[in-house]
Amino acid sequence: MSDFQCIAKIQNDFKTKFGLPRQSGMAEHLISKIVMEKPFRVPDAFRGIEEFERLWLIWEFHTAKKEGEWSPTVRPPRLGGNERVGVFATRSPYRPNSVGLTCVKLEKYYIDKNDGPVLIVSGADLQDGTPIFDIKPYLPYADSYPDAAAGFTDRRQKKTLSVVYGAPVPAGMSDPQRKALDEALKNDPRPAYQSDPDRVYGMRYGSWDVRFRVSGETLTVISFEPEP
Amino acid sequence: MSDFQCIAKIQNDFKTKFGLPRQSGMAEHLISKIVMEKPFRVPDAFRGIEEFERLWLIWEFHTAKKEGEWSPTVRPPRLGGNERVGVFATRSPYRPNSVGLTCVKLEKYYIDKNDGPVLIVSGADLQDGTPIFDIKPYLPYADSYPDAAAGFTDRRQKKTLSVVYGAPVPAGMSDPQRKALDEALKNDPRPAYQSDPDRVYGMRYGSWDVRFRVSGETLTVISFEPEP
Repeated sequence: MSDFQCIAKIQNDFKTKFGLPRQSGMAEHLISKIVMEKPFRVPDAFRGIEEFERLWLIWEFHTAKKEGEWSPTVRPPRLGGNERVGVFATRSPYRPNSVGLTCVKLEKYYIDKNDGPVLIVSGADLQDGTPIFDIKPYLPYADSYPDAAAGFTDRRQKKTLSVVYGAPVPAGMSDPQRKALDEALKNDPRPAYQSDPDRVYGMRYGSWDVRFRVSGETLTVISFEPEP
Repeated sequence: MSDFQCIAKIQNDFKTKFGLPRQSGMAEHLISKIVMEKPFRVPDAFRGIEEFERLWLIWEFHTAKKEGEWSPTVRPPRLGGNERVGVFATRSPYRPNSVGLTCVKLEKYYIDKNDGPVLIVSGADLQDGTPIFDIKPYLPYADSYPDAAAGFTDRRQKKTLSVVYGAPVPAGMSDPQRKALDEALKNDPRPAYQSDPDRVYGMRYGSWDVRFRVSGETLTVISFEPEP
């Protein structure tokens, strides 16, 4: 057993798991802020970081954590949720150690007078409040293998939905927020198997509850409600 | 704090840290065997894994572990050991959580009658006996960014040495073992700053103690001694 401490927490618009992008490659526009925990607010520890375009985050699937429990097989959403694959052949949260791995783009690094060193990143598939264990630079010579065969994820690319806004986008929603919302919706946040065109879904996003329906290949946003 | 359990251990020819490749990109030929700990010898957990060409290993820098201690800056070997960089801008072992990240190539997967599911991988920069916390598939669409700028690692590519064998390669050394040894030697295992051409270094490799000298850009292997 090894103890890992939370060194930072992430902040973004995905307040719940529903709608959260399922991989970083699907959340290109989602902006997140990484705020260090107090003992790690040390600017020296980030010296040179702004020269890296991308970073790795190693983090905790804190909402998926189940003490001592793990299942050898899982049903990945990409396979429609009806095919079982070994957990080590997936990036599923339900694994022996609840540790996640995500490559993000470093958009900005600065020192905040209250929070100390802050990283603004895009492309994180982490829910708001997720604890982070480590931040490492992305090294293409060790980490990039564009042509590596990737099993079932190669065979079945998920179809994306067309997104129609049947309600005005709130004035308070920024352009990057709107783009990240588009991405989340077009990747179909519904659980596998559900295809009732009358069903209204609600997705917490920033300070809104985004209500939508899906019919065939089209997702229609019905309304933006203030958060409950 | 989160408790992580060791799910597997790696076995290879690097019995000590000296000479161990400093990134996976420098250990292409090094073959390692991953043997699961008993509770994880479950073939179902690997269903589909052989369709992936590459895997991530998340592991523990177990020899670098220092309870509660970390240094905000480190001196990466690639910068000659004389320039300080923030720990989060490096892949140094001396970080708040002693966690390592390595992309390996999956060479073979099989079920051993004693050890259960076994993974044979190449390219691991992990010392023999290193505890592994997680094994994940490599997904190019989420993990591969060949053109990402990479700070100081872009600016200074380490020079490699010419390797000369002044002693016969032992009959018991396989061709892949010899290739992996070549890689380790040409990447200059010496600590930074050392440049005494008369000094004899000894590197534990497999069942041998490999003795060598370095003069200028040439590394000469003097002898292969049986392990002490």
